[in-house]
Amino acid sequence: MEQNIIYVPIALAVLGLLFMLIKMSWVKKQPAGNERMQSISKSIKEGALAFLSAEYRLLAVFAVIAGVLLFVISTLVPTTSWMIVPAFLIGAVFSALAGNIGMRIATDANARTAEAAKTSLPQALKVSFSGGTVMGLGVAGLAVLGLSLFFMFFVSQFITENGDFYGNMTVVLEALAGFSLGAESIALFARVGGGIYTKAADVGADLVGKVEAGIPEDDPRNPATIADNVGDNVGDVAGMGADLFGSYVATVLAAMVLGNYVIRDMSVDGQFTDAFGNMGPILLPILIAGVGILASIIGTFLVGIKNNEAKEPQVQKALDMGNWTAIVLTLVASWFLIDWMLPETMNMVFFGEGTKEIASINVFWSACIGLAVGALISFVTAHYTSLGKKPVMDIVNNSSTGAATNIIAGLAVGMKSTFWSVLLFAAAIYGSYELAGFYGVALAASAMMATTAMQLAIDAFGPIADNAGGVAEMSELEPHVRERTDILDSVGNTTAAVGKGFAIASAALTALALFAAYVTFTGIDGINIFRADVLAMLFVGGMIPVVFSALAMKSVGKAAMKMVQEVRRQFKEIPGIMEGKATPEYGKCVDISTKAALREMILPGLLTIVTPVIIGLAFGAEPLGGYMAGVCVSGVMWAIFQNNAGGAWDNAKKSFEAGVMINGEMTYKGSDAHKAAVTGDTVGDPFKDTSGPSMNILIKLTCLVGLVIAPILGGHGMDEEVEMENVSEEMYMIDAEGNQTLLTDNQAEQVKEISKEIMVSLSSNDTLTTAEVTIRTTKDGETTTETKTFTGSEEEVEAQIEALRE
Amino acid sequence: MEQNIIYVPIALAVLGLLFMLIKMSWVKKQPAGNERMQSISKSIKEGALAFLSAEYRLLAVFAVIAGVLLFVISTLVPTTSWMIVPAFLIGAVFSALAGNIGMRIATDANARTAEAAKTSLPQALKVSFSGGTVMGLGVAGLAVLGLSLFFMFFVSQFITENGDFYGNMTVVLEALAGFSLGAESIALFARVGGGIYTKAADVGADLVGKVEAGIPEDDPRNPATIADNVGDNVGDVAGMGADLFGSYVATVLAAMVLGNYVIRDMSVDGQFTDAFGNMGPILLPILIAGVGILASIIGTFLVGIKNNEAKEPQVQKALDMGNWTAIVLTLVASWFLIDWMLPETMNMVFFGEGTKEIASINVFWSACIGLAVGALISFVTAHYTSLGKKPVMDIVNNSSTGAATNIIAGLAVGMKSTFWSVLLFAAAIYGSYELAGFYGVALAASAMMATTAMQLAIDAFGPIADNAGGVAEMSELEPHVRERTDILDSVGNTTAAVGKGFAIASAALTALALFAAYVTFTGIDGINIFRADVLAMLFVGGMIPVVFSALAMKSVGKAAMKMVQEVRRQFKEIPGIMEGKATPEYGKCVDISTKAALREMILPGLLTIVTPVIIGLAFGAEPLGGYMAGVCVSGVMWAIFQNNAGGAWDNAKKSFEAGVMINGEMTYKGSDAHKAAVTGDTVGDPFKDTSGPSMNILIKLTCLVGLVIAPILGGHGMDEEVEMENVSEEMYMIDAEGNQTLLTDNQAEQVKEISKEIMVSLSSNDTLTTAEVTIRTTKDGETTTETKTFTGSEEEVEAQIEALRE
Repeated sequence: MEQNIIYVPIALAVLGLLFMLIKMSWVKKQPAGNERMQSISKSIKEGALAFLSAEYRLLAVFAVIAGVLLFVISTLVPTTSWMIVPAFLIGAVFSALAGNIGMRIATDANARTAEAAKTSLPQALKVSFSGGTVMGLGVAGLAVLGLSLFFMFFVSQFITENGDFYGNMTVVLEALAGFSLGAESIALFARVGGGIYTKAADVGADLVGKVEAGIPEDDPRNPATIADNVGDNVGDVAGMGADLFGSYVATVLAAMVLGNYVIRDMSVDGQFTDAFGNMGPILLPILIAGVGILASIIGTFLVGIKNNEAKEPQVQKALDMGNWTAIVLTLVASWFLIDWMLPETMNMVFFGEGTKEIASINVFWSACIGLAVGALISFVTAHYTSLGKKPVMDIVNNSSTGAATNIIAGLAVGMKSTFWSVLLFAAAIYGSYELAGFYGVALAASAMMATTAMQLAIDAFGPIADNAGGVAEMSELEPHVRERTDILDSVGNTTAAVGKGFAIASAALTALALFAAYVTFTGIDGINIFRADVLAMLFVGGMIPVVFSALAMKSVGKAAMKMVQEVRRQFKEIPGIMEGKATPEYGKCVDISTKAALREMILPGLLTIVTPVIIGLAFGAEPLGGYMAGVCVSGVMWAIFQNNAGGAWDNAKKSFEAGVMINGEMTYKGSDAHKAAVTGDTVGDPFKDTSGPSMNILIKLTCLVGLVIAPILGGHGMDEEVEMENVSEEMYMIDAEGNQTLLTDNQAEQVKEISKEIMVSLSSNDTLTTAEVTIRTTKDGETTTETKTFTGSEEEVEAQIEALRE
Repeated sequence: MEQNIIYVPIALAVLGLLFMLIKMSWVKKQPAGNERMQSISKSIKEGALAFLSAEYRLLAVFAVIAGVLLFVISTLVPTTSWMIVPAFLIGAVFSALAGNIGMRIATDANARTAEAAKTSLPQALKVSFSGGTVMGLGVAGLAVLGLSLFFMFFVSQFITENGDFYGNMTVVLEALAGFSLGAESIALFARVGGGIYTKAADVGADLVGKVEAGIPEDDPRNPATIADNVGDNVGDVAGMGADLFGSYVATVLAAMVLGNYVIRDMSVDGQFTDAFGNMGPILLPILIAGVGILASIIGTFLVGIKNNEAKEPQVQKALDMGNWTAIVLTLVASWFLIDWMLPETMNMVFFGEGTKEIASINVFWSACIGLAVGALISFVTAHYTSLGKKPVMDIVNNSSTGAATNIIAGLAVGMKSTFWSVLLFAAAIYGSYELAGFYGVALAASAMMATTAMQLAIDAFGPIADNAGGVAEMSELEPHVRERTDILDSVGNTTAAVGKGFAIASAALTALALFAAYVTFTGIDGINIFRADVLAMLFVGGMIPVVFSALAMKSVGKAAMKMVQEVRRQFKEIPGIMEGKATPEYGKCVDISTKAALREMILPGLLTIVTPVIIGLAFGAEPLGGYMAGVCVSGVMWAIFQNNAGGAWDNAKKSFEAGVMINGEMTYKGSDAHKAAVTGDTVGDPFKDTSGPSMNILIKLTCLVGLVIAPILGGHGMDEEVEMENVSEEMYMIDAEGNQTLLTDNQAEQVKEISKEIMVSLSSNDTLTTAEVTIRTTKDGETTTETKTFTGSEEEVEAQIEALRE
């Protein structure tokens, strides 16, 4: 049974997808309301599909170019199989599919939630949460299915009975990294494109519709209104779906790669064996992910309320109940899985500290640390962004003296919020590493992401309820309908903040795990910032998230201006539009906004993907590691800063809706202070919806690109790698007189590096090659310089290298 | 002669100070204008002195506490002399003195410049620039004098004829680091306190005076007006003086420390000797600084215009003439100094690359790189913040759609400006390191700072001209006076932007040099971010500048509110104040603002100074290195972002004064777009005057604190350090059967670490000590574990360690 355990996550993923289909058909069977409601819902859906088709056309071009480049890499590097290309393409397709499923169900569920809210709050919650569940299970099911199937297939292709297990598994995992790279690339475009789209449409619709034409918000006569509603789905639903799909895959992949290192470290006394095809530590993360799907399904049954008079706390409690049930079930299952699948004690090599014996239970504690820190960071995030809490009230109070003080207060809140978040995050790194090395760090991230299905169900139900409220308003339904959807929306805002905390923390830990995988992949001896080139690239990496954010923010402005022009043109050129006789060309607005958003995305996208490649090729593996670390450190700061400042500004503005006490006076909507708060919210919009959420993907994508090009940089070969690994500790140089001099690690590293280069160049070009190796040895204050010249065919050179080794 | 070369910089410093006194008395001899002008000038001076006395009282408390802590450190660590305490205190006093001199002359020169502007523009330039020259020479003269005298004294105390030169010189330089630490600590308080002060007074004076009481700006009846004008001097003059004093000292010190490593690297074949008391590489930076003073004095003679009808370009040209003359003279002199004082080729140990032969001319090229990159970064800074350039015009255009778009555009400009600045900076690190190692990096920073006297003269003349304009306005002088001072002020703004570019670049390079010194001081083997604890602290370090900035920004708001309350009280309680019959209590406003500013400074100040100490003690030397790198990377980003965003907002607002074309329409002061630009400028004020400029000091102070506590962490002993350094390459372990096993670098490092610990504990506590050393060796896939136990007195342990070495 244990041999075929890979079928378990596949079965669980299929189960999740089946359950998703059942939920989907249930949602579709619900009454969709009157004609007006259906027409609005249909327009939003059409707009969303128009966006998707435009997006896919552009992304197809990107995918083809990237695929060709990957194919070129696979021909150059012996350890990279050409199968990375289909993995990449299917990863991209799956990521797009995950976003697509979410967007379709969300646009189906909005009117149905409004219709259900006519009857009762429990029913409205049921419909909207079912919509969210479809999306959650779609993302998680596709991710686990894709990873498991590819893994199984690659194992069947590359793992041979008596071959070098670790080396072959490296090939498997590198091909699998293609799947993750595809998913994360699409996530970047979906997130940033969606973010630019939604804010451009928002501003465009408001400026021309509300201000110039004087028609109300969400009026169907405004060509950009649909784009605005589409934008909510595009940004909050499809963007988030692709983002979490990418995160989920990257996290599981990183844990699998580190599992392979556990196997390598335990294979020094001979090949590691266990009942799970000798790959328990690699399979564990994917099993936990599969179990997380099952736990999420169970959790969804607990989300429900009975009382029609329920308020926010009851709804929140119902969601918490489902969420924590899923988490606790996953954690309990993880305990058994870890106990079952890992050897009782493992030998792990700790960098600079040698090999340590780690009890498998430590891996479980790492997972607990991950969950605890994720929850605490969510708590910090909620504190800094929640209505009524000190930070938001501080911004509210500063609004009374104008927009400038509101902005300063908001910026300060965002900046301050980095303090506890980063300390907690540092504690998570430190703690999980101490417990179980980088495998522990990866498992901590995996634990955070294990219940992605449930987490996303809770996240996605918010925008559905929000849209349902819009549909209710536009269709002029009775006020109690809007009241009920507002309760759901308000709870959705809180859960979204909690979800953001998990997202940042897990992304950062995943990046670290990928970073660790990168170091080992390239075979470098750590990343030492005492080297000037590494340090220089650390600075360059630190700059990238800042410039990326600036580009994303500027893009929102540019795209909004294009939208404004199109809306003005339609008002002028289409007769009868203002009288409601002619239908505005929604598709054109959507198309313009889409194209503008995606065009604006090219520069930040290229910056993210191309910069690490350039740095890697120009400066080598260790400087690229410095670059990656710089992107991570700076990216985490700017993510927390921008998300929390944006969230706090938003809620400071919302505070005025119910009225708020400033200097002993109740202040409401329409006051000067409220206007100042609106300014703050407008500044915060691109922060929290465009540049802020992109930081997560930027961080992970940078590390994934590094990982995929790692073999070119390190030039690690399957056989050479392992062979060299074992001799590196004791390399001798024999001089003309036959005296042996033992090389230091650094010198040995040089020899390895050069001999690898020779092998690589010979394997691609089978002619004579000459290489000169100069080794300086300092002994008793005397510096000796030795130069060796290698000339000859591959065999001759290898013989010479052999001779170099004792 | 060469033996006593240290007298040359002393003589040059004294020359600079003498020239300063001559200039000072010349300025004081100039006519100070009519009674009204003198009275305004006197009030500003009194306010400034009130600030200084309050500041000194508070800083004295800090200095005493820090002095006691340093004394405790000096008793614990054998390599730290108690003399670090007087060095620290005198450094603090000198830094305060530098700010004091600048503030006194600036407050003397403002009315005199206005008076001179009555006659002619050339005369006004002469007076204001002479004021700046006094400040520049004061800062540079005191810095070189203090460093040289202390160095000479410490050398006489610690360098013995036949002692270990490198070890003893380390003691000298560590005591000298106390001087730098004192200077930089005061700089932090002066900069941040001054920044909070000036913005608090600004807002307070405006809100109550202009808005509530309806009296004009700069009206002497407003108790906060003087505080406002004082604030300009406190922030722009005294803060900057202390800041540059600290920077200058830190840069020269870092270069001296790295010079000592050059000597160490060249002493492997026996003690390095040269004609300069065997310390040419250490003395070179201080000689260059001394020559820079002379070159600056020569340069000041070239600053002058003849034509009374001159405009900005002519004034700019005159300043450029002086500035570039000083730079070129210093560079030429450096060429000769480098050729004369350094050995023709030097052996430098490059981390991970072994020893390289470096021609001394490379050091000169490093200096050239420093100057070129400094100039280019200034050019980038000027591009992003200058009137009429694309970035500022972009903010102007975005002002037409309101404050929100203005803010977004400004933030985006600041963020984008990091791109070229960071790339240039990375190129400077890379290039100067490749040329001459970290000594090259330090010399590149030194070259940037060499003409500090001239640079500061140009920087400080701006605020003097600005204040002169205020005096002219308040005294109702003829319009042509104001026109003339405006020309000077406008040129001053441009030169300030250029100065900022140099300041950021040199601070960052200095921090790197200190960072390199730290690594060597602690004796750690680089800073490897592949270690989880180092990585965690890299994140914590990255967070500090963000939180520091948030605290500084919030402090401005809080202090401003206190000022508002005091002004309201005086208007209410002092009879006749509005009729001009009673003099307002300027001192009270100043005192309140001062106290509030300094109280608000405590938290960010402690954060800066205490955090590295806690991290160093809790986690050790390498994690602290990670923390320092995190502070540097993040600090550089936030410095560039905040300074440039603030500068761009300021000039976007100024664009409206002359009128600006937006969407084909001329727009002026008072328009809605202008109001939006004012909002942006208000947000930018704390960015560019409070938190932004503090980043430089934060970075350097963090590295200095690390350097001072380094001996506690690394536990490096004078003798042990050198001795161990040479054997580390080849350490053998002999097992029970007498077989020799060569230790890898990591193992050797462990043995060194443990044996150091034993020595340290024995030297402080002369009883029996037991230590256990476990070494695991992996050979041919077999892991052997060896445990050694050391027991005994110092001699016995040392004998055992000796035995460990072959």
